[in-house]
Amino acid sequence: VISGDWSKKSAQEASHFGQIRIAANSEESGRYTRTPPQSEWKLDPQAAYVHMCSNETIGGVEFFWTPDTGKVPLVADMSSNILSRPIDVSRYGLIYAGAQKNIGPSGLTVVIVREDLLGHALPITPDVFNYKIQADADSMYNTPPTYAIYIAGLVFKHVKALGGLQAMEARNRAKAKLLYDTLDASAFYSNPIAPECRSLMNVPFWLKDAQLDAAFLQGAQARGLLQLKGHRIVGGMRASLYNAMSLEGVQALVGYMKEFEAQHA
Amino acid sequence: VISGDWSKKSAQEASHFGQIRIAANSEESGRYTRTPPQSEWKLDPQAAYVHMCSNETIGGVEFFWTPDTGKVPLVADMSSNILSRPIDVSRYGLIYAGAQKNIGPSGLTVVIVREDLLGHALPITPDVFNYKIQADADSMYNTPPTYAIYIAGLVFKHVKALGGLQAMEARNRAKAKLLYDTLDASAFYSNPIAPECRSLMNVPFWLKDAQLDAAFLQGAQARGLLQLKGHRIVGGMRASLYNAMSLEGVQALVGYMKEFEAQHA
Repeated sequence: VISGDWSKKSAQEASHFGQIRIAANSEESGRYTRTPPQSEWKLDPQAAYVHMCSNETIGGVEFFWTPDTGKVPLVADMSSNILSRPIDVSRYGLIYAGAQKNIGPSGLTVVIVREDLLGHALPITPDVFNYKIQADADSMYNTPPTYAIYIAGLVFKHVKALGGLQAMEARNRAKAKLLYDTLDASAFYSNPIAPECRSLMNVPFWLKDAQLDAAFLQGAQARGLLQLKGHRIVGGMRASLYNAMSLEGVQALVGYMKEFEAQHA
Repeated sequence: VISGDWSKKSAQEASHFGQIRIAANSEESGRYTRTPPQSEWKLDPQAAYVHMCSNETIGGVEFFWTPDTGKVPLVADMSSNILSRPIDVSRYGLIYAGAQKNIGPSGLTVVIVREDLLGHALPITPDVFNYKIQADADSMYNTPPTYAIYIAGLVFKHVKALGGLQAMEARNRAKAKLLYDTLDASAFYSNPIAPECRSLMNVPFWLKDAQLDAAFLQGAQARGLLQLKGHRIVGGMRASLYNAMSLEGVQALVGYMKEFEAQHA
């Protein structure tokens, strides 16, 4: 299921290892402004699995519902929205997530796999990526990235101390609402994503006049508002609101955006 | 080329991906006490590559010479002795080394590959392990383990400040000599490795009476001499003398060993 650039890459990568089939694709003219609704999914009941990416960082498109794939295991890349809100893990066959957004340092990937799916690795699977071998070895078949695991443990405790994933969701919804409301109230900035698919983690937005992009970024940097340049594939701006971003950070961004608009509109 | 448990594992792993051939093997009754000398190597000039492990941490066996493999590229796992002494990188087709011994935190692997060997990946190679794709992307095709890379950079600067790899070799030789001399001067302790193959990094040794092992380890721990228990495959003791171990650390170990011998011999 393709809902953005990462799920598209996953489909290409999977084609090295088996026959792939696109069950749904929300790409329109090279852009993604929504997730494909279940009604558009053409599932093959014989498929080994269905793969989705639950949040697309480049497009700013997120799934807020769990697809029903019947008996076919659902595999989700949750790299960019895991820990941002509660999920029903039991609905998934396999969840994987690079740590570098909400969990901890890059170089660690968390895999949650249903036990009955273990033991079906292709013969060409390297032993360290064979989940059966790793599960049997308590994830220590090879030397694990110990420091990244240690930091992830600290982050898990921190999230719990803040109130757990319910609290994270409330924080993340408040942060995203403030920014989307600002975008929607303005004719100077825009975000084209369908409201029900707007990512809580990554908010791409565009200035009415792209010639002002450089000035916008320069002013932002002067205020300590960093990494706002959009991904080169889509251009424009992108604000990433991962768990580590505070509401105060978003308030500062929104304040700057209004100020910039008043000066340049 | 099999000279210990790690090169044996590598041969098994490689068998998933192609036809392998054992060019030399120094295993005797399940143990390794030497590297196979070049005269024992039966190379296939048509081989895609020859693989060796330059230091075997479990057996305590190290290569102190660079094999001549003619036009066949030599591939070396240097995980456990890289940065311990100068090596002539130009003699190798590919060198790989997990960072966790002499470079930095686990979760990072350094690969040094000859440019003409890029672009020959099997179609089933995942893109992130395709060295051509990684080289073209300056090793950032996927999100790299940034913190581990940062620490590795600090270690490289530290090694340079200490005098570089010549200085590390002198330090490492002095550390290993002190321990091996102690073992050889004693009838209470032993190390069976051929002198010209004795690892500078990992020194396995055995007490004459294995029933004293627990008491030896307990006394060592009480003195802050840790992680001396030998690998479960070979038993006994093992002192690892990676770059981070000081001469003073080895002196403390040797002092304790003599004291323990005097009490129990």
